Amino acid sequence: MVRNEMLITIPPLDQKAVARTRKRLDGLAKPPGSLGALEEIAVRLAGITGDMVPSVDHKVIIIMAGDHGIVTEGVSNYPQHLTRLMVRTILGDNAAVSVLARQAGARTLVVDMGVAGKMEHPGLLDRKIKQGTDNMLLGPAMSEEEATRAVIAGRDVAWSAIDQGANLIGTGEMGIGNTTSSSAILAVFSGFPPELVVGRGTGCDDERLQFKRELIRQVVEKHRPDPRNPLEVLAKVGGLEIAGLTGCILGAASRRVPVVIDGFISTAAALVASRFEPSVTDYILASHLSEETGHEIMLGMLGVKPMLHMHMRLGEGTGAALAFNLIDASIRILKEMATLDEVLSLEEMLGV
Amino acid sequence: MVRNEMLITIPPLDQKAVARTRKRLDGLAKPPGSLGALEEIAVRLAGITGDMVPSVDHKVIIIMAGDHGIVTEGVSNYPQHLTRLMVRTILGDNAAVSVLARQAGARTLVVDMGVAGKMEHPGLLDRKIKQGTDNMLLGPAMSEEEATRAVIAGRDVAWSAIDQGANLIGTGEMGIGNTTSSSAILAVFSGFPPELVVGRGTGCDDERLQFKRELIRQVVEKHRPDPRNPLEVLAKVGGLEIAGLTGCILGAASRRVPVVIDGFISTAAALVASRFEPSVTDYILASHLSEETGHEIMLGMLGVKPMLHMHMRLGEGTGAALAFNLIDASIRILKEMATLDEVLSLEEMLGV
Repeated sequence: MVRNEMLITIPPLDQKAVARTRKRLDGLAKPPGSLGALEEIAVRLAGITGDMVPSVDHKVIIIMAGDHGIVTEGVSNYPQHLTRLMVRTILGDNAAVSVLARQAGARTLVVDMGVAGKMEHPGLLDRKIKQGTDNMLLGPAMSEEEATRAVIAGRDVAWSAIDQGANLIGTGEMGIGNTTSSSAILAVFSGFPPELVVGRGTGCDDERLQFKRELIRQVVEKHRPDPRNPLEVLAKVGGLEIAGLTGCILGAASRRVPVVIDGFISTAAALVASRFEPSVTDYILASHLSEETGHEIMLGMLGVKPMLHMHMRLGEGTGAALAFNLIDASIRILKEMATLDEVLSLEEMLGV
Repeated sequence: MVRNEMLITIPPLDQKAVARTRKRLDGLAKPPGSLGALEEIAVRLAGITGDMVPSVDHKVIIIMAGDHGIVTEGVSNYPQHLTRLMVRTILGDNAAVSVLARQAGARTLVVDMGVAGKMEHPGLLDRKIKQGTDNMLLGPAMSEEEATRAVIAGRDVAWSAIDQGANLIGTGEMGIGNTTSSSAILAVFSGFPPELVVGRGTGCDDERLQFKRELIRQVVEKHRPDPRNPLEVLAKVGGLEIAGLTGCILGAASRRVPVVIDGFISTAAALVASRFEPSVTDYILASHLSEETGHEIMLGMLGVKPMLHMHMRLGEGTGAALAFNLIDASIRILKEMATLDEVLSLEEMLGV
């Protein structure tokens, strides 16, 4: 059994901590609930961690990279080897996600799950399953055994980050062609036609968009993966970095660590994770609503609400990094704000 | 002429700086436009300031406070003197906006535009026009002369903050009853019925909501202010803190300083400002979409898009403070990210 191999069980939220934190928030100097998502985040983090005032001082963005055999069909504006170059740029600390992670006080952890070609860098975690997926138009993207290994590798990366102190994990990715795989995953789980779930990715034109939709229709038609079997879905139409992120999300939840998901690809991984273990969504915070077609549908299927509406479509973990500031804000409110009692005590003091 | 008295002219955006900054963004290591609003903010700030890489290192949230005569009718869950207590809490640096401003590295500047009762505090700027507005159910909230003085006072507060170095201004407010006034302003400018523009404010129940809607219908019916005359609107159904914020927004724009508006009340002030001077909207960034009914309509009328969807409804400037981090992120991207050329030069180096 795959599930047992993964050794992942997800504990329920701590309802006592939820109640205690909500009570504390309701006693602060503001109308109850008026800080909206800031309050909901604090309450959720309390439920996840069991702490009334959760710590989020060790933030890590786990960025998984992998290549996609389908790119030989011409689904992307960019050549495959850009995956390698961008991984290198992230490792060099001056990609978009590097800049935003630095602002948020977060570490980036870059993992090679299946980049085509040789990659060596002291900062890179080598968990390569193979040199990119196979072309899913011709056969499955990978074997179920490979998909399992990728999920387990992702779980272990999360566990090891947590062992080193991480208490807030963000997800990110890099992989030319991975919106195509994510759209196929969404098509399978939602049953929706390509028009609703396939978008422009890094910005393809109308012609390529049409082509990409038709290709995904063919891919889904060819494999007909069983939506009740997430491992089969991953193997047939997934990606190595997506499988890794699935494991990473499940791994974080199993250790009671909140996960902030980024955009379309990260959310596809979260969707797969939720099919392995529905309660994983309790541990997931959605950072932003991507410009990519289908992201809103995915978030709706997960039952999570994005905080940021920034029309971004870059990935890498950029949205997750931006959301880290909001999560910090939520915990600061819990820690630093005056209570209503303190405000009312001014009444006497000032003789109002 | 009121307009001349205010001495406010708003310069056009610097289109050369806009073009230069857009070119720089398009050369960074990402698909053009893929950072969405982060890119649009950078471009807008360049147009506003004329600098290709604008500085936003002196952030100030200007919080204007005032009371409302209409509260004697029972429109709010909270008593009038809570305005004073909350102003005191903000001055004590432990209100919600204080916490979030601290996180954003912003200063708060609290202005008494018309709080009922005596207020003294070394940190408080006293610009009191009068002891709260009059009950607008019985007569105009203030005279046009008072409204003009409030707008000019707000303009001067912004100018003086800018003289002291402020290069990014956020707006905030405190005033029990000020959603009622803001809803009335929106009703006048939009022509929409109370059902669309009047919400629960700090959280009133169905009965009070019905009562508030009916009251605002009566107020608008009684005064019928001319929507083409923003000063008349302010005087008849406005608030002293709202008039002050109107001046503050116009003042910042006239000095080429970007203004981040907060929620429903701040946006009402921005709406009034845009009726004095339509081009002011070029200088306005919308922080968040409030939970308050009517805010989305207001933002649409201004033609601005909120970055944050956090279901907040507190005011004070809390949303503006949260958005400051996103504006910082936008400038960091401009300053710190690798260019596409740099990434492609890795190609040879790595022998890809």
